Amino acid sequence: MLQLRHSIALMLFAGLCLFPSVSTAQDTSAQVVNTLWVLMAGALVFLMQAGFAMLETGMVRAKNAVNVMMKNYIDLCIGTLLFWLVGYGLMFGDNPSGYFGTTLFGLSSAPDWDYTLIFFQIMFAATAATIVSGAMAERTNYIAYLIGTCGITAFIYPVFGSWAWNDQGWLKQMGFIDFAGSTVVHSVGGWCALAAIILLGPRLGRFSEKGEARSVPGHNLSFIAIGGFLLWFGWFGFNGGSTLAAGANVGHILLNTHMAGAAGAIGAIVLCVLTRQPILLTSTVNGSIAGLVAITAGCASMQVPYAILTGAIGGGLSVLGVMLLEKMRLDDVVGAVSVHGICGMWGTLAAGLFLSGNMYNPQQIMVQLAGIGAAFVWVFASAFLMYFMISVVFGLRVSSMHEQRGLDITEHGEIGYPEFGQYAMYKNENLKQLSKLS
Amino acid sequence: MLQLRHSIALMLFAGLCLFPSVSTAQDTSAQVVNTLWVLMAGALVFLMQAGFAMLETGMVRAKNAVNVMMKNYIDLCIGTLLFWLVGYGLMFGDNPSGYFGTTLFGLSSAPDWDYTLIFFQIMFAATAATIVSGAMAERTNYIAYLIGTCGITAFIYPVFGSWAWNDQGWLKQMGFIDFAGSTVVHSVGGWCALAAIILLGPRLGRFSEKGEARSVPGHNLSFIAIGGFLLWFGWFGFNGGSTLAAGANVGHILLNTHMAGAAGAIGAIVLCVLTRQPILLTSTVNGSIAGLVAITAGCASMQVPYAILTGAIGGGLSVLGVMLLEKMRLDDVVGAVSVHGICGMWGTLAAGLFLSGNMYNPQQIMVQLAGIGAAFVWVFASAFLMYFMISVVFGLRVSSMHEQRGLDITEHGEIGYPEFGQYAMYKNENLKQLSKLS
Amino acid sequence: MLQLRHSIALMLFAGLCLFPSVSTAQDTSAQVVNTLWVLMAGALVFLMQAGFAMLETGMVRAKNAVNVMMKNYIDLCIGTLLFWLVGYGLMFGDNPSGYFGTTLFGLSSAPDWDYTLIFFQIMFAATAATIVSGAMAERTNYIAYLIGTCGITAFIYPVFGSWAWNDQGWLKQMGFIDFAGSTVVHSVGGWCALAAIILLGPRLGRFSEKGEARSVPGHNLSFIAIGGFLLWFGWFGFNGGSTLAAGANVGHILLNTHMAGAAGAIGAIVLCVLTRQPILLTSTVNGSIAGLVAITAGCASMQVPYAILTGAIGGGLSVLGVMLLEKMRLDDVVGAVSVHGICGMWGTLAAGLFLSGNMYNPQQIMVQLAGIGAAFVWVFASAFLMYFMISVVFGLRVSSMHEQRGLDITEHGEIGYPEFGQYAMYKNENLKQLSKLS
Repeated sequence: MLQLRHSIALMLFAGLCLFPSVSTAQDTSAQVVNTLWVLMAGALVFLMQAGFAMLETGMVRAKNAVNVMMKNYIDLCIGTLLFWLVGYGLMFGDNPSGYFGTTLFGLSSAPDWDYTLIFFQIMFAATAATIVSGAMAERTNYIAYLIGTCGITAFIYPVFGSWAWNDQGWLKQMGFIDFAGSTVVHSVGGWCALAAIILLGPRLGRFSEKGEARSVPGHNLSFIAIGGFLLWFGWFGFNGGSTLAAGANVGHILLNTHMAGAAGAIGAIVLCVLTRQPILLTSTVNGSIAGLVAITAGCASMQVPYAILTGAIGGGLSVLGVMLLEKMRLDDVVGAVSVHGICGMWGTLAAGLFLSGNMYNPQQIMVQLAGIGAAFVWVFASAFLMYFMISVVFGLRVSSMHEQRGLDITEHGEIGYPEFGQYAMYKNENLKQLSKLS
Repeated sequence: MLQLRHSIALMLFAGLCLFPSVSTAQDTSAQVVNTLWVLMAGALVFLMQAGFAMLETGMVRAKNAVNVMMKNYIDLCIGTLLFWLVGYGLMFGDNPSGYFGTTLFGLSSAPDWDYTLIFFQIMFAATAATIVSGAMAERTNYIAYLIGTCGITAFIYPVFGSWAWNDQGWLKQMGFIDFAGSTVVHSVGGWCALAAIILLGPRLGRFSEKGEARSVPGHNLSFIAIGGFLLWFGWFGFNGGSTLAAGANVGHILLNTHMAGAAGAIGAIVLCVLTRQPILLTSTVNGSIAGLVAITAGCASMQVPYAILTGAIGGGLSVLGVMLLEKMRLDDVVGAVSVHGICGMWGTLAAGLFLSGNMYNPQQIMVQLAGIGAAFVWVFASAFLMYFMISVVFGLRVSSMHEQRGLDITEHGEIGYPEFGQYAMYKNENLKQLSKLS
Repeated sequence: MLQLRHSIALMLFAGLCLFPSVSTAQDTSAQVVNTLWVLMAGALVFLMQAGFAMLETGMVRAKNAVNVMMKNYIDLCIGTLLFWLVGYGLMFGDNPSGYFGTTLFGLSSAPDWDYTLIFFQIMFAATAATIVSGAMAERTNYIAYLIGTCGITAFIYPVFGSWAWNDQGWLKQMGFIDFAGSTVVHSVGGWCALAAIILLGPRLGRFSEKGEARSVPGHNLSFIAIGGFLLWFGWFGFNGGSTLAAGANVGHILLNTHMAGAAGAIGAIVLCVLTRQPILLTSTVNGSIAGLVAITAGCASMQVPYAILTGAIGGGLSVLGVMLLEKMRLDDVVGAVSVHGICGMWGTLAAGLFLSGNMYNPQQIMVQLAGIGAAFVWVFASAFLMYFMISVVFGLRVSSMHEQRGLDITEHGEIGYPEFGQYAMYKNENLKQLSKLS
């Protein structure tokens, strides 16, 4: 009897101590820390929008600065709403066929963790969409561009995502490795951009009559560098948050990410030297971004030296890719096809080649190639069809006159820097003069 | 005897396991994770200062860029020191009357958690103060502006804050809902701005003799968009940290925040189309900020679709608000009264209207309206009185000659971009010429 | 028997509840939360690169903007790779002599926590390196600068770091306090910059024939302010992450950091008023950075009012330091020697003077002075020797003609803002004209 009372007391004591401990330790530590990490990572991915906006705007002429900023701002807004409404369900909903999800559209009442996940995934969808805007810059019909964004965030991106990242997706089932989206996000954006620029054609004056490429310098190189830093910063969330859980392994992931970014810039510089090209700021910044794109697939499953190698080759490829596109007389204003498309492809392959503990495994490499090929076929074909239809219905390209005047005035009725540059002639005029302009 | 020994052994065993577990789990998980989350959120709110600085500077003419930057930099510094010294105590100190706090001034030796809280709250106070700077831009006496900042961060803002956020505050006691400060921070800033611009009067040339509004384009639209992105990014800390604790519910809060921001931009665009106005970059960015302001009160207590609705209406209201102010011949350079004042009001009402599980409850709506009204009466009256006194003693507005030359030269003796714009005439001169200028 | 069964059941019950609790609580809470905090802090320190880049670029003339951006971008990349390969081992490897580490070079297979640590430390090394770039701006041979960066990140910085931060380091053993690196990072960067500018000599026209200093206004003051905000934001990671562990005390650290930054700006303004100088944006922003540098050593061991005092004195010293350097006819373009070197020295002393619970302890102050002196002797001497050798072998300074034309064209073949400023003459020309330029 005494013992029983004792035991009961002990149980109560244990219960008092344990229950708060267990509930705090499990709810707080595991789930809450996961939540906060993924949310903070998602916020960093959001900031990549600012990075892309600065990078792309810096690379265009001042007469198109407002247009690029508006495209980046609005594709985020449209992408957010549409991906919540349609894309998330297509990508992560129940996916019996392996080809697209069928539930979770317009998520409203859900467990807390689902809100966290969709917040993070919205940022990824917006990244895929915004990759396209730079490539198409300086000559695209604004409305046509926005309709394309709708197609990418609501359909093209999530469908491929459901193959590779949905647990029931056919590529995922095959063992396809693309940790944070070298293919799923970056190549998808890159191939959409490729389809668009083939249909658009190059900017006026970008190639001479003889087909020689002529450089069209961007209007603000400082913006390009700051944009690069912001993208790099955001990438720590992009790759670090893709664990979708807090873990001690995030240190390895972020170190790999950072080393690959640094190696990418160096790789691009080496290629510039080898091909006797000047080492431009744009090539250097793009090289680091290419390194980051390349490590995105394998950052969680590669030793540090291989991460450096992956990044360096990515940086080099970004330079070669730009040369290749110029040879093909394709005009990619910011190098997006090369940096995101080609280097995303390379990174996905590298994730298979340099898989820690299982390197150069032919079967894994075949799976990686299958994923890379599937991405190209699906995305390029569907994006080409989409932009072709947009082209027929709305017109994809602005008129030559509008292109020459700049899209800021013709598409938006605004000027990015009304007191500087070609508008500086108005500088000594009074307000009345300025108001006539607007 | 055996059982007793057994039980003691078991207690010791349980003790050994439990005590480290409890102390780690509670100190580490709960308190430490709370601390780190609130601090990181506070850091993001800090970055909103950079967002406001870019947004506001982009919206003024180049001749006032240094002035706006200086105001934003210094109001942060002054606000930080004064809010630590006076404001925090007024807002969160022991508050027996319900109308102001009476302890915690100049916090020095305190539990760790208090340092974390005051760090977070300083950032909020600085946000409220800096909202005013943009509205008053391009014609305000610099010293007068800074004195106004002192009044806001040390008195006007914390007194209202003690009503709504101090546990003993009279509005809090009534059940007023303003989770992260649609009213407490944004409307307070907006109504201070309203009082200031009424007293200041419009910029030279802003309205024609007939009273027609004339647009005065900002000098750097790229800055406006990047400022918008930075503000949006910082808002994840603003709303996410206002839990003042780590929790799995932060996912819902951030998703609501993000959706409302996206919907705000779309809402503003729709209103522009409906009112046959051009869709300007400024309206779009301000629309998203308006959506974020609107969701701030209810982000923790609203379903996602209502967050979208709240944001979209906020975006629309920001456009209408700007039109209304122009009708009243009030010159708010950046639209702060509309975006922060009016949309903060709407968001606080929406938090009552769309309260999850208790929608359209007339009593809650009455409480919300009481809080909205109290904020307007207290803030507008006290700010008007303050700026009026400043105006009498120091002069609130610079001379016409100074306004025309630009405040950068007249108030600071510096030029924002000495090699560009109206100073480009010096471009071919040598250093001697430049040094004469400075 | 019943009791025994009871006790066993109780043990099993306790075991079931405890073991997951303990393992989750310790692995998840302690190690994972530490990891995530240090990584996030490291990411914020990374963003300081963008802050430095904007601050420094804003302070130079437009003709050198690309050069500054390239230096900041590439020194990060080189510093990252070299510090991983060499510096981290020298600094944190096994250090039997107390003067340099001998293991951990090119870290590849390591426990997760090591990856996290090296990620964080790489960002610190990159910060030390990039401090130098601004001081040397507008006249330095690009390749010579990069070689200097290699020497700093691979040798000068990690060797001193091994004295002060390696547990076996001789300064650490003496009880030297430099929590987050007022001396280890900032003074080291500052003294490297001092050695470099002595060897480089001032820019053309910076001092008149009579030795009077002439101001050379930077081309973008908005960039300076935004750079200051970004640096300040990054400092929350710099100081907050230097706990190398998650803890509730981070709140105190960040509050001290923030208060010192605010007080630094005010301190600089007061000194400007006292010395009858204009209150320039540059002095104000540099004042806040100086306050942040000063609090870096003692932010974890000082009461808030002393943090404010430390920051304010730091801000004042930054103004005096600039005056002193001008008197010595040394040309530090951005004030790095003053802000990082001198204020780092002051902050390290202040950490001894105002040590919470042990203030004005003569022995501690002697130790602090020993560390400050050791840093100056080692860094200045080795950096002077290094830059002298670089000067002999490669040439440290560009030709006068190149300096006058601007390093963007002569070192990089690019223009920062091809449509503005002195290149605006090409604005009405067509693309052909522009392409001839490039």
